[in-house]
Amino acid sequence: MSATSKATPSLSTIDTIREKARRLGILSMMATTAAGSGHPTSCLSAAELTAGVFFYAMKLDPKNPNGTESDRFVLSKGHAAPLLYAALAEAGVFPVSRVMTLRQFSSELEGHPTPRIPGVDAATGSLGQGLSVGAGLAIGAKMDKLGTRVYVLLGDGELAEGSNWEAAEFAGHYGIDNLIALCDINALGQSDWTMYRHEMEIYREKFESEGWDPQVIDGHDVAAVLAALDQAKSATTGRPQAIIARTIKGHGVSFLANKQGWHGKPLSREQLAKAVAEMGGAIEVAPDPGRSYARTRLPEPPDFPEPPAPSYKPDASVATREAYGNALKRIGAVNPELVALDGDVKNSTFAEIFGDAYPDRFYQAYIAEQNMVSVGVGLAARGKVAFLSTFACFLSRAFDQVRMAAISRSSIKLCGSHCGISIGEDGPSQMALEDIASFRAIHSSTVLYPSDAYSTERLTEAAARMPGITYIRTSRPKTPLLYSATDKFPVPGFHVLRQSANDRALIIGGGITVHEALKAHEELKTQGISTRVMDLYCVKPIDGKQIAEQLKAAGGNLITVEDHYPEGGLGEAVLSALAEAGATPKRFRKLAVNGMPHSGKPEELLEAFGISTKHIVSAVRDMD
Amino acid sequence: MSATSKATPSLSTIDTIREKARRLGILSMMATTAAGSGHPTSCLSAAELTAGVFFYAMKLDPKNPNGTESDRFVLSKGHAAPLLYAALAEAGVFPVSRVMTLRQFSSELEGHPTPRIPGVDAATGSLGQGLSVGAGLAIGAKMDKLGTRVYVLLGDGELAEGSNWEAAEFAGHYGIDNLIALCDINALGQSDWTMYRHEMEIYREKFESEGWDPQVIDGHDVAAVLAALDQAKSATTGRPQAIIARTIKGHGVSFLANKQGWHGKPLSREQLAKAVAEMGGAIEVAPDPGRSYARTRLPEPPDFPEPPAPSYKPDASVATREAYGNALKRIGAVNPELVALDGDVKNSTFAEIFGDAYPDRFYQAYIAEQNMVSVGVGLAARGKVAFLSTFACFLSRAFDQVRMAAISRSSIKLCGSHCGISIGEDGPSQMALEDIASFRAIHSSTVLYPSDAYSTERLTEAAARMPGITYIRTSRPKTPLLYSATDKFPVPGFHVLRQSANDRALIIGGGITVHEALKAHEELKTQGISTRVMDLYCVKPIDGKQIAEQLKAAGGNLITVEDHYPEGGLGEAVLSALAEAGATPKRFRKLAVNGMPHSGKPEELLEAFGISTKHIVSAVRDMD
Repeated sequence: MSATSKATPSLSTIDTIREKARRLGILSMMATTAAGSGHPTSCLSAAELTAGVFFYAMKLDPKNPNGTESDRFVLSKGHAAPLLYAALAEAGVFPVSRVMTLRQFSSELEGHPTPRIPGVDAATGSLGQGLSVGAGLAIGAKMDKLGTRVYVLLGDGELAEGSNWEAAEFAGHYGIDNLIALCDINALGQSDWTMYRHEMEIYREKFESEGWDPQVIDGHDVAAVLAALDQAKSATTGRPQAIIARTIKGHGVSFLANKQGWHGKPLSREQLAKAVAEMGGAIEVAPDPGRSYARTRLPEPPDFPEPPAPSYKPDASVATREAYGNALKRIGAVNPELVALDGDVKNSTFAEIFGDAYPDRFYQAYIAEQNMVSVGVGLAARGKVAFLSTFACFLSRAFDQVRMAAISRSSIKLCGSHCGISIGEDGPSQMALEDIASFRAIHSSTVLYPSDAYSTERLTEAAARMPGITYIRTSRPKTPLLYSATDKFPVPGFHVLRQSANDRALIIGGGITVHEALKAHEELKTQGISTRVMDLYCVKPIDGKQIAEQLKAAGGNLITVEDHYPEGGLGEAVLSALAEAGATPKRFRKLAVNGMPHSGKPEELLEAFGISTKHIVSAVRDMD
Repeated sequence: MSATSKATPSLSTIDTIREKARRLGILSMMATTAAGSGHPTSCLSAAELTAGVFFYAMKLDPKNPNGTESDRFVLSKGHAAPLLYAALAEAGVFPVSRVMTLRQFSSELEGHPTPRIPGVDAATGSLGQGLSVGAGLAIGAKMDKLGTRVYVLLGDGELAEGSNWEAAEFAGHYGIDNLIALCDINALGQSDWTMYRHEMEIYREKFESEGWDPQVIDGHDVAAVLAALDQAKSATTGRPQAIIARTIKGHGVSFLANKQGWHGKPLSREQLAKAVAEMGGAIEVAPDPGRSYARTRLPEPPDFPEPPAPSYKPDASVATREAYGNALKRIGAVNPELVALDGDVKNSTFAEIFGDAYPDRFYQAYIAEQNMVSVGVGLAARGKVAFLSTFACFLSRAFDQVRMAAISRSSIKLCGSHCGISIGEDGPSQMALEDIASFRAIHSSTVLYPSDAYSTERLTEAAARMPGITYIRTSRPKTPLLYSATDKFPVPGFHVLRQSANDRALIIGGGITVHEALKAHEELKTQGISTRVMDLYCVKPIDGKQIAEQLKAAGGNLITVEDHYPEGGLGEAVLSALAEAGATPKRFRKLAVNGMPHSGKPEELLEAFGISTKHIVSAVRDMD
């Protein structure tokens, strides 16, 4: 499985790899024909590249393909999944016969790769993400001082995605020289010729400008593929390596090769027979030997000892974003796997507190959020605890990457600072007002929204231990402490901050609006109206039954108040959880940002857009 | 305001522009000091570039800066807003004294540009979007056969965003030679040096590789700036033009120039005085003359005559995605402003039906969704009706661009095909299951979810006339017709497809689940249970009162069923609308995709993930 020789590959080696490539191509066609769907022509263009990686260059333990000692292969052009499955099977990771279960309901071999499949570290199929994942895997290997390499196979269609060039500049900048990109330049996208067709020098120039060592080769010339792999592996330039291969979509089959209209179409049985004949005749597929084979087990966030408790002066006023930075440093001291990345706003998200303390575990990810998130996915797949931060609104830039992270069963942690209108003067482009909605909709996500420094510290700690996608929403303004070092913050959970036997409404807020709710509580008290105030620090998951109990105890009237647009946010989350629990507010009022905000002082904006103390007070009075 | 001479700019011209640059720099510092926040150093690096564009190169009608006869200026580095405002004011668009209202609650001059400000076509401030907007404006000008140019000022920090390189490759590919990018390479980001600092040749190489004509200049040498602008304007290469300017952040002020730690910080009064002195002394700011000045009026989608009615054979089975393509062609015949872009899946979204009929109004946007959306924003700002399509899940790639489109008050129309698990074998990477949540959360958005060909045709027609962001969610599978050519689809609205006087539950679905609901209705009927079936073709806005009436008439029990994750989707939208209307279901059950899906046949997946006929039937029976 391994070859480290720098000598020219022998003729018999070349023949062996060529036969492997032929098998991979034929298996890909057979599997897609059996499935009745899939992308055989996208497999054929990359068969020699893939065979070269798997059976010549790569160090792969078929018993533990996701292990730290194995090189990694990321199929960025995820629609060529059958090719990957064929390679994994031929490498002994699972029986070759299983490739024929492609796309079936009961099979792990899905239409596009997911980590349900041993040897796959991250889901692909939304294009342009694999190179970033690969960069993350490669950094992780370097951090662990392991000499393993990461191979990423990219299509040319997806090279139009800007995210790839974020990954390329990142890898170039940090000299990630254990990363090898293989670009399958077959000139055909799904619906059209690609932008650059076979203008190979454009790709060379693009990679070169990003600080890579590119080689342009004929991707169907096995000798050239192996020589390029040798050169990439032996390079001592400290640069990432790109093998840019001129290929033909549907290579090897006369009626497929370089033809429009074949993307994502399986061959009929008759076409398959003809294609196999053209490619040198049928191959044998041994029946499933019935032995057990590798199962994926993606790393969960590693356990770590209890860090020292956070500590703030009782009268301190601390922004939750700053507490996030403090928490990272505090946890980082006891958890050596914690790694943080930030999108050139580390002095605003306060990730720099960690970065200054642990520079070896901090990456400046620059203003390239998509790459940052997918690098995090790669790191997490290597067992790192990846915390990624930027302004909450700019995480929307990487929403597809977060979606794919969930499909990757990744456990990345995202911190979005500067949420909502409470940021003030910078205006709407810098305000996240859709982020609770979008992060709630991510599968298996946890959405945390702390309201003071202690809750931020403890929730960040919880995040470090949690599987799945965790989102921490922090605020810009300084806020007083609401909790102490001994308070606990179970997930799911909330804290009731004010209550009495005579409550006439339940006010539920999160983050900054908890402070508005507390002020409203005081003001209403002077008017003889008791209210119950809840800090819903965990917006997802929510325990509707427990909220229903509080609602009942508070008399049944409910006000939710959130620094977010009305759709999909805290209010709807609460309403939905109550409904699931069979409970209904007597009266309900959802206070949320009720217009397109603009610049102004935070307090002016809270007032103007309907979520200030005054609005809470009148909502309660209207119900009373 | 205009200069077309190719001769070397005269010394007096150079002096004039240098003085303008000095004024812009000083005004930017004064405004941010007055505001107490903002980014003066980011303005100083680009003062000469901006002065050169506004007072030498650009054709600008200060009475109608957003008019079709004016050149356009897009400030992609939106945090340099005061510089733009100063330039617009000095150009006579509004009084210079107004620049001092920067960032105030009552001022249109927000912290980052929005189209509330005359002369601004699109909101910026989320970085890396201006070049795409500029490309859209430039294409629009070309379509209208107007010789106007578009200038885009970019920062080097934001050049790390991959979206810029999507824009660059798009502009290079289509030879958008009326687009001029000015890159302010000041080497300093917010929190760090940029990736390439002052390595000017890297930027040159990057633009060159994308098919641009780059010039590298000293951005503080006014003569060089003007000469570069002359050269860019007179180029006959058919390529977009890039002026890559080496600049100094905080240029002209000793204690700011090239210093870390000054990003986004205003000067104190004392610092300001010192800085102004260093820059040649105070400038006069005339008081507001009190005359009226230009107001922005962004174009609304133009009216167009009624197109011929759609027509399908009564027994036809047509995917809504295909009806979308048919609708574009049908509307395109009567609306010459309709333009469509697609992300290399035009044969799946069926945008190709329009593209084949009107190739001059169709752009292959390749696999670069971020650029596609922002190009659409540019086109819409030029009065075009821009329809943008790809798989619904891949629109998540451009969520930030859609968010900014809303802040831009844009009226782009997005069509996302292949929503939900009903796509089947391709697996979760290709399934949009978060899109209703994310699009609902976009300010002033309309979310349409047709269930058959006729409703798709009519809702696409409605979209073409609508202001604001419109999202059309189409499905992959073919579905039978539910409507006829005479049915109307008001927005907001729904259709009740089955009802009786004895209904025992209201079932609300959208798209594919309407068909499941209808099957459930039939099955329940055989069991003696009458149900009311609603097609909620418009998920936002919703009229909760009208739904409440239907719910009451159906006996109060409610089942929602959606091909979407449970959070933020159709079910929560309905629940929330009912709550706002003061109505509550007697019993409620939200059926939504209840796990991470995988590959399989559509019907297998609907069944396995809880949204098939069978699940609806048992939800109704459980309540009965």
